[in-house]
Amino acid sequence: MTDEILLREDRGAVATLTMNRPGALNALSDAMLAALKDAFAALEEDRSVKAVVLKGAGKAFCAGHDLKEMQAGRQAEDHGRAYFADLFARCASVMQMIPRLPQPVIAAPHGIATAAGCQLVASCDMAVAAEGTRFGVNGVNIGLFCSTPMVALSRNVPRKQAFEMLTTGQFIDTDKAERIGLINRSVPHDDLDNAALELAETVAGKLGAAVKIGKRAFYDQIEMPLAQAYEHTAAVMVENMLWRDTDEGITAFIEKRKPDWQS
Amino acid sequence: MTDEILLREDRGAVATLTMNRPGALNALSDAMLAALKDAFAALEEDRSVKAVVLKGAGKAFCAGHDLKEMQAGRQAEDHGRAYFADLFARCASVMQMIPRLPQPVIAAPHGIATAAGCQLVASCDMAVAAEGTRFGVNGVNIGLFCSTPMVALSRNVPRKQAFEMLTTGQFIDTDKAERIGLINRSVPHDDLDNAALELAETVAGKLGAAVKIGKRAFYDQIEMPLAQAYEHTAAVMVENMLWRDTDEGITAFIEKRKPDWQS
Amino acid sequence: MTDEILLREDRGAVATLTMNRPGALNALSDAMLAALKDAFAALEEDRSVKAVVLKGAGKAFCAGHDLKEMQAGRQAEDHGRAYFADLFARCASVMQMIPRLPQPVIAAPHGIATAAGCQLVASCDMAVAAEGTRFGVNGVNIGLFCSTPMVALSRNVPRKQAFEMLTTGQFIDTDKAERIGLINRSVPHDDLDNAALELAETVAGKLGAAVKIGKRAFYDQIEMPLAQAYEHTAAVMVENMLWRDTDEGITAFIEKRKPDWQS
Repeated sequence: MTDEILLREDRGAVATLTMNRPGALNALSDAMLAALKDAFAALEEDRSVKAVVLKGAGKAFCAGHDLKEMQAGRQAEDHGRAYFADLFARCASVMQMIPRLPQPVIAAPHGIATAAGCQLVASCDMAVAAEGTRFGVNGVNIGLFCSTPMVALSRNVPRKQAFEMLTTGQFIDTDKAERIGLINRSVPHDDLDNAALELAETVAGKLGAAVKIGKRAFYDQIEMPLAQAYEHTAAVMVENMLWRDTDEGITAFIEKRKPDWQS
Repeated sequence: MTDEILLREDRGAVATLTMNRPGALNALSDAMLAALKDAFAALEEDRSVKAVVLKGAGKAFCAGHDLKEMQAGRQAEDHGRAYFADLFARCASVMQMIPRLPQPVIAAPHGIATAAGCQLVASCDMAVAAEGTRFGVNGVNIGLFCSTPMVALSRNVPRKQAFEMLTTGQFIDTDKAERIGLINRSVPHDDLDNAALELAETVAGKLGAAVKIGKRAFYDQIEMPLAQAYEHTAAVMVENMLWRDTDEGITAFIEKRKPDWQS
Repeated sequence: MTDEILLREDRGAVATLTMNRPGALNALSDAMLAALKDAFAALEEDRSVKAVVLKGAGKAFCAGHDLKEMQAGRQAEDHGRAYFADLFARCASVMQMIPRLPQPVIAAPHGIATAAGCQLVASCDMAVAAEGTRFGVNGVNIGLFCSTPMVALSRNVPRKQAFEMLTTGQFIDTDKAERIGLINRSVPHDDLDNAALELAETVAGKLGAAVKIGKRAFYDQIEMPLAQAYEHTAAVMVENMLWRDTDEGITAFIEKRKPDWQS
């Protein structure tokens, strides 16, 4: 069982995905990307899960792409062009599955989160990190600029901070990661699992349909001009208001009792 | 006089609007939204006012929508669909009037600013809060995701912080609100009125036409690609330069004297 | 030599540009804008330079436009309209040359950086400031709203902070500038040159082609919707992977040795 490259453990309404290739610092190999894709696809259909935690086994969260596997791709007649195009498309697709999942996804990094591993953190809806975690988009150090990771990074942190990380390849610690917006907060290493789980359970305790419609609207509206964003979200709120469970939720609040939700 | 749901008091060139339904924590009822709309419409035409402060009477700034009034809307044959659509459109319209007003609007929240009340703070151009104020977009707790408030919130604060507030429903304090960009700063509760007024008077002491053309350009350019933003604002600066009062302002600066402005 | 309005000194692969009109606080006169334009155009073609530092001689980094020269423009028959239109277009063009340069540009401000001088800092890819530097977009104080500077400023810092700086004309210090994202960090005044140079040399030590393709992609993708940004940057990474030097960089990393780069 622990041979599997990606573990899933459900506890109540929270599913925890653990990247499990510790010997390779959970590098995003073809197999790991495929496993994440399958796991996300399964979660998309799984109505029993209301929040997801993503973490890594061993000494690190994720060290990015699998460099040896990438280099092997150069043996092809086209020197790897087709393979690399496919690889980066698959990776970008997996990253974009996270904001599109109905459930909020919480990254719980520890150790290091570098390159595409840092991109994973940035792509998650929220992140709680172990103190001491180091974050970097350090591909530039080996001549491969972290161009796809910067898509997620630059939508999380201020421009000059993102630019410095990308062009110097230097790591930042959890204090800085929190200050610039890459993570929500950090906790002592021993508390990481509990802290991530607690945040997930808090979210999972809400009306799932409301979180789902809200998360989708969050990423939809954020790319719209202001007026269009309001038009879109106002329509979302009307739908939300007409649900039986929302009626019950508001009534319960007015009557100062717990809501009796059906879903 | 104090029966009115929204008070306006002018002092010099600063108008202070006070939401005055303290028994309902200044909830944004149909009447409150209508009063805000009328007040903003009047300010739009009022050339004597050069800055606006928005605050709340009683224990809180604003607790969001009026839930009892909303629930009453369900009695209609369509279970409230038409009423809710109209309500959220009216609310979104009032929120969007703030960045469109010619005068800068400063929110001066205290107590709590929740849901659409937090959206009001985010929608204002600036915000000075009383220490101890708590901010939340906590509709998710009653099954109604704060989808329209998140439009304003997510344009003020980093994504992961906005997402956490929206999906956990948890409150943040003034220190965090300042750190993530929701407010400009906090002051002791007893200093709130003076601090907001002082900031308003600072702005009101500038050349009104320059602030007006600048505020409009601020929100116009922020949604444009870089090159278009520069083209647009360069044209604004040319107009600005050609005013008599700007000529006088620059000349006075060079001559190290106070400007003699006509407007 | 020191009569020149803009000095360039190359040290290894780092070019340092020094605005050298200290008596006018390095104001962006027609001549200074022309000199910056020429210097940037030369750098664009200069493959020996891999990073650029921009600083100011004398007591300040840059105090913005040359007000006396602008006022003289009013003598024309059209009261300066054509001149001002040309001036702001030229200035906006110079500002936009910075993100378009192949090399990262590091602002190294000290003293004051105001109006278009603050815009220069915001337009650079990174900024290291001397402690004590004060930043402002204070044109509003003389009746000329900093409309073009706000294009760069509002893409670096949160909205409410940008709005306050623009409408109050007040200065912020380096601590606040760092906190809100206008600069990467500050250092003691005596360490400024070394700190800026060290950051530049760190960047210059990377594979130049990777930094160049990455910088271009950074500003291209940041204005795109998420899916398009990923499509664009994935294509960039494929090109990057196919370079000989990137092959060597990755191989060297796997073999735990220094890369032998040809460029």
